[in-house]
Amino acid sequence: MTSGRATGPAGDDLVGLLAAELDKGGILTGADVSARSSDPFSHVPLGSRALLRPRSTNELARILEICHRHHQPVVVHGGLTGVAGGAAAGTAELVVSLERMNRIIEIDPAGATMTVEAGVPIEAVQAAAAAQGLFYPIDLGSKGSATVGGTIATNAGGNRVLRWGMTRQNVLGLEAVLADGTVVDLMNRFLKNNTGYDLKQLFIGSEGTLGVVCKAVLKLVPAPSTQQVALVSLDSYSDVLDLLARARRVQQLSAFEVMWQDYYALVSGDPARRLVDPDPAFFVLIEAMGSDELNDNAAFAKLLETAFDDGIVVDAVVASSTKQAEEIWRVREGSEILVREMGPFVSFDISVDIRSANEFVGAVRDALASTFGEYRSVAFGHLGDSNIHIGVHVGPDTRERTHDIEACVYGVLRRFGGALTAEHGIGSAKREFLPDHIPPEALAMMRKVHGALNPDWTINPNVLFEH
Amino acid sequence: MTSGRATGPAGDDLVGLLAAELDKGGILTGADVSARSSDPFSHVPLGSRALLRPRSTNELARILEICHRHHQPVVVHGGLTGVAGGAAAGTAELVVSLERMNRIIEIDPAGATMTVEAGVPIEAVQAAAAAQGLFYPIDLGSKGSATVGGTIATNAGGNRVLRWGMTRQNVLGLEAVLADGTVVDLMNRFLKNNTGYDLKQLFIGSEGTLGVVCKAVLKLVPAPSTQQVALVSLDSYSDVLDLLARARRVQQLSAFEVMWQDYYALVSGDPARRLVDPDPAFFVLIEAMGSDELNDNAAFAKLLETAFDDGIVVDAVVASSTKQAEEIWRVREGSEILVREMGPFVSFDISVDIRSANEFVGAVRDALASTFGEYRSVAFGHLGDSNIHIGVHVGPDTRERTHDIEACVYGVLRRFGGALTAEHGIGSAKREFLPDHIPPEALAMMRKVHGALNPDWTINPNVLFEH
Repeated sequence: MTSGRATGPAGDDLVGLLAAELDKGGILTGADVSARSSDPFSHVPLGSRALLRPRSTNELARILEICHRHHQPVVVHGGLTGVAGGAAAGTAELVVSLERMNRIIEIDPAGATMTVEAGVPIEAVQAAAAAQGLFYPIDLGSKGSATVGGTIATNAGGNRVLRWGMTRQNVLGLEAVLADGTVVDLMNRFLKNNTGYDLKQLFIGSEGTLGVVCKAVLKLVPAPSTQQVALVSLDSYSDVLDLLARARRVQQLSAFEVMWQDYYALVSGDPARRLVDPDPAFFVLIEAMGSDELNDNAAFAKLLETAFDDGIVVDAVVASSTKQAEEIWRVREGSEILVREMGPFVSFDISVDIRSANEFVGAVRDALASTFGEYRSVAFGHLGDSNIHIGVHVGPDTRERTHDIEACVYGVLRRFGGALTAEHGIGSAKREFLPDHIPPEALAMMRKVHGALNPDWTINPNVLFEH
Repeated sequence: MTSGRATGPAGDDLVGLLAAELDKGGILTGADVSARSSDPFSHVPLGSRALLRPRSTNELARILEICHRHHQPVVVHGGLTGVAGGAAAGTAELVVSLERMNRIIEIDPAGATMTVEAGVPIEAVQAAAAAQGLFYPIDLGSKGSATVGGTIATNAGGNRVLRWGMTRQNVLGLEAVLADGTVVDLMNRFLKNNTGYDLKQLFIGSEGTLGVVCKAVLKLVPAPSTQQVALVSLDSYSDVLDLLARARRVQQLSAFEVMWQDYYALVSGDPARRLVDPDPAFFVLIEAMGSDELNDNAAFAKLLETAFDDGIVVDAVVASSTKQAEEIWRVREGSEILVREMGPFVSFDISVDIRSANEFVGAVRDALASTFGEYRSVAFGHLGDSNIHIGVHVGPDTRERTHDIEACVYGVLRRFGGALTAEHGIGSAKREFLPDHIPPEALAMMRKVHGALNPDWTINPNVLFEH
């Protein structure tokens, strides 16, 4: 299927050839490269011989064509916030960063689209949309760094998928450069377009292994003008499911985030985050975003009141200002507390049937206890999307025991028929587990598609597949 | 890229081999085949030697494996409502119909999904969802016949794409059989799942050329309980755009259908459809669907009142009952009047930039006038989705002049950068025009993907590509 992975390190000749295609700032070498890392959390210096920074699709295409001709593998860098090792690059690879392709090209208010280069950060997209009364719904903790290109390559999710979908559902068109330098213009702007295969889908979520996304047409929606946020506590998982079913009937529902007690107990150690009593078993952040202050507030209040009256909800705080809404969201986004209080931990990003999510969390705890004896774990996530994050600490040597912890948790996951990764992607970190979590026929089909478009493994050779 | 199209007609031996895999009703031959047509509007008898009706994925897989081994091309039949010649089959092909794979397998109210076999009609999906207080949003005039498999293969759209997206946005997972009989299980049920390539996307909208969809997991939404429908008339296209911008701010907006005067004049010849005076230049059907009778009615009424006060809307009727809502929808769905009053016509299904849609319609009229002299045309469509349908009649020989009419309209479309097909697909009817409407690099990439998965052209060889 494949002609083998290209591995030749870049000789001086090749670096010279590439430099000739770029301006002075277009190629970094030596200390300018090793000052960078492929993972901002690890700080391991980048070992690549050169980092290329094209300013245009044409420059990118010429670079890839030259690398392809010389069997030189290339790893593409966006905002480096994927936390799955998708940007990992060694001495054998050159790095291409799209950081200088960062222009917002056009906003079309009538069609509700924005056309951008791949290096634009998500936060800049959101700001430009807001200036036109529009909204780009993809919302990530890392939005200041995460780029359009990176979020497309990984099909990023985030907090509001329940309402507006993943990145895939918010991209109308794109332009990509194939492994051999061919530019493919798929810059569709229409909601409806069945003119041939929807090829852009191949570049979304394939982690850069089929082509490099360099431009995109994003779908915008009218900006919500109201926001309702509440944090509630509940005693049982069946109450959580009941609340979710009721919340789904609120048309403006934009987030339904669940925190298990182990998570909230840890985070509410910070007094600013102790918004409700930490004793109940479950905590849920509910958000709605609409356009009619009076009616939206009323619908949201009615949801909470009837849930309270029916004995589903134990306690609740409702934000009465944007500041309070942010305070509630900070409870859910307490990762710096996890880092500080749990010490090193291994994190998981899985999807599992909503009906059995709590049973799954219990089974993971049992498996951790029987495998490791002492352990600590927290569970939280986007339950409305089936997506749960779990953090696991088994002692000071947690990092070194990563593989064993993963094998333990993924073993339980397989029993529950869950998904190995909900939103972060496989990257290089999970590729050894991929064959156990999709059918062999699907993996074979992935290899066929990969073989048709990137047969020499010249772009992003380190992710998804084991060689 | 391809090893040439397989063309061998089925010998008696092959038909016998296939019959041995199926039960008594599983294979039709002779008059049972010629009593059918690949296009219910043309009534041309089907010329295939046999029509196969598997009852399970395993039967389908065995059939395709045998056909593949014997280089026997196969055309797949769903509900036959695609109107793009996608089901066209000649004497060289066998037909496989999924009509007996029509079970609803499971509805999961917590996850809001429905698992079905490909032969289930859309109307049956809608009814089963409604029985659980849920809603499958794909809404087509042909929903009684159109099947899940056919709508996935063609990525069907319809009236409510503006709110809920195309079929692609409403499918979470599927099972497909590849050309060589390999079964690929992609039955994802999660909103978030980035475990490898999202291979299901390759089967959606590829018109059966990459595999045969046999099961699907559909995404359901809470059933709306309120419906507001109005028909309004407007004097200018800028007023239409203004109304669309205002309507988009109504969160419950589910349809924004525009009819040009030529369409409404024809349809309102039926007194039951003459709901407003037919003189203004534009007519718009607006629909909202929500869950809060009082507030939704108020928001809808406010939209219309302010549009009226601001002089945007000339006249309006608002439905005050489900029956009246249906009457208004019948204005928009007047195709039987077009057939009766316009005689033979050639129909178009294009997308074009919303801002220039009226200019496009004018340019099409000019081109038709200068090419054909006498002509008649009507324009209408899902303007909120950029999708316009145009019907063109140039005289009693309209059918015979189809190619010239298409060349004329598509010539204008290219100038406007529009899409050759918005929702019906390329089928066999438009494949000669495809290379003029997508970049050569995209067509080459389509052929690469096709070559990887259906290299011998054994499934659906007659659509999308010219050989």
